[in-house]
Amino acid sequence: MGADFSPKNEVQGAVLAQKEFGSDIKIILSGDKRMIEAEMKSANIAPDTFTIIDAPNTITMTDEPVAALRTKRDSSIVRGLEAVKNGSADAFVSAGNTGAVMSAGTLELGRIKGVSRPTIGSLFPRSMGGYTLVFDVGATVDAKAHWLREYAVMATVYAREILNVTNPTVALLSVGEEESKGNELVFESAQLIKETNVNFVGNVEGRDVLNGKVDIIICDGFTGNVILKFAGSVLGALKTRIKRYSEGGIINKLKAAVTASVLKTSLKDFDYQEYGGVPLLGVKGVVIIGHGSSSPLAIKNMIRRAAEMTRRRINEQIEQELNKLTKIVANV
Amino acid sequence: MGADFSPKNEVQGAVLAQKEFGSDIKIILSGDKRMIEAEMKSANIAPDTFTIIDAPNTITMTDEPVAALRTKRDSSIVRGLEAVKNGSADAFVSAGNTGAVMSAGTLELGRIKGVSRPTIGSLFPRSMGGYTLVFDVGATVDAKAHWLREYAVMATVYAREILNVTNPTVALLSVGEEESKGNELVFESAQLIKETNVNFVGNVEGRDVLNGKVDIIICDGFTGNVILKFAGSVLGALKTRIKRYSEGGIINKLKAAVTASVLKTSLKDFDYQEYGGVPLLGVKGVVIIGHGSSSPLAIKNMIRRAAEMTRRRINEQIEQELNKLTKIVANV
Repeated sequence: MGADFSPKNEVQGAVLAQKEFGSDIKIILSGDKRMIEAEMKSANIAPDTFTIIDAPNTITMTDEPVAALRTKRDSSIVRGLEAVKNGSADAFVSAGNTGAVMSAGTLELGRIKGVSRPTIGSLFPRSMGGYTLVFDVGATVDAKAHWLREYAVMATVYAREILNVTNPTVALLSVGEEESKGNELVFESAQLIKETNVNFVGNVEGRDVLNGKVDIIICDGFTGNVILKFAGSVLGALKTRIKRYSEGGIINKLKAAVTASVLKTSLKDFDYQEYGGVPLLGVKGVVIIGHGSSSPLAIKNMIRRAAEMTRRRINEQIEQELNKLTKIVANV
Repeated sequence: MGADFSPKNEVQGAVLAQKEFGSDIKIILSGDKRMIEAEMKSANIAPDTFTIIDAPNTITMTDEPVAALRTKRDSSIVRGLEAVKNGSADAFVSAGNTGAVMSAGTLELGRIKGVSRPTIGSLFPRSMGGYTLVFDVGATVDAKAHWLREYAVMATVYAREILNVTNPTVALLSVGEEESKGNELVFESAQLIKETNVNFVGNVEGRDVLNGKVDIIICDGFTGNVILKFAGSVLGALKTRIKRYSEGGIINKLKAAVTASVLKTSLKDFDYQEYGGVPLLGVKGVVIIGHGSSSPLAIKNMIRRAAEMTRRRINEQIEQELNKLTKIVANV
């Protein structure tokens, strides 16, 4: 309910998903029942298409997450996650307040055994095609080395099962490729990650996020969040520049139009809608968090991703891998 | 001597600077005398155009900075900085090993009174034109809050004197704009910066680096270095994509050529050569560090910037401002 175009885009995204995946997926809508029904009516959708969990309260984008979870129990986020907790849903997808979904995901569902802190990953498109996964992009800003080790294990399972990468390569984000370059967190984390089964290849730099040198990049949530938001601003900055260029006369206008069309095609995968949302890993349930302004297409892709994560039993595998980790560490 | 095109580009950059600034600037070249003279001869430059400090040893890009400074005293970096220290030069400009210039700058020249850690700043072009200054981009990776306060003071002096910004706005890089969003370093630094005369406006996010919301962004050197290198890779990633697009047939090839020319014009200031190098602030002397592959144009602009910093007596002003800071803190 608290996203930029709720519940319109959520309802339309659910319709797209239902069309594409049919009876493979059963969609439950958690939110203000009257608003959802009105939306469905105006879009000519049969009232019995989706189950609705009535959650009249809304956690807004500016609400302080933890406080909101206490006072707004009747919100779409809390009620939706309760459905996952009590087993009536397998996964939860939201374009609402990221902090609230993350906190509620952790508090309502609890952490998988062996997980100290849940983590949020993001896909960065590579210059040569495909994506690089970056964990953590903001779940926890002050990180500890053993949390980064857990992120590396969880991200490896995700890349293997969901992105179909065989033996994904994992690197730590740092200020230089050499083992001697980094801050204290990087040095400590490198030692801990080396003890795991993760395919750890050392350090990478900021420039390696887009060049596809490794499959997975691990960093603290502060740094990850800063790059995620920086990266998200690049296309807008480009558009501003091209618009200014186009104002330099008719020839410029034509050339700018060509440029815009070339960039639209060649940077298609820089559009977050294509991959939908980002996973919250480490909680007992599948949770996907989307952009506040998620389109129906983005919502549909988030639903698809959530279904994949459920079918591949991501969380069971994360628990198994972290359990191995405990044994390895215990044997050291 | 240790840059990608030394001493060729340095000599040619010095020639460009001499032509442009005439007797306003006196250029001393520190490096292998025979190689410099050979370069000058092949470029038909009169042998007495520049003073030469003979420094036959070279600190390479892969040398470990501190070790190299001990063993390679006869290097262009050490000898050049000695000239600043003993007063025979006002400023030092280098496209060599960044870590070595930074360490040597600190060790040879010493720190300005009141400076705990020198810092390196970088200019990020804004979408609407102009630049945002980011400090620190890698001088010190594990930062403390009172160092960030010093960065804020030094960056303010630099923006005011060199970029001619009146009362520059300063923000801390964080994961949200609200005062409640950030890591421990951000929270502590905000409190300390508020005690200064700096025009502190609060937090900004990764997306605000390019949008020009503030004049100066302060962060730890780890985060700053990661964004700097990420940003530096964006143009390359764009070119790769456009090149791939151009391989889709003759029409694509033509459209890609138009796109490349539009981007070349409209992203001109994304080219580091335009602003030359980045300042190392906090040491007793003017030091500018350039990109390893600095062109003659970049070298010329670094020399111009170094002259400006010398004339505006940047370091005296930094010392004065930090002295006020001590008084403010003492009065609390």
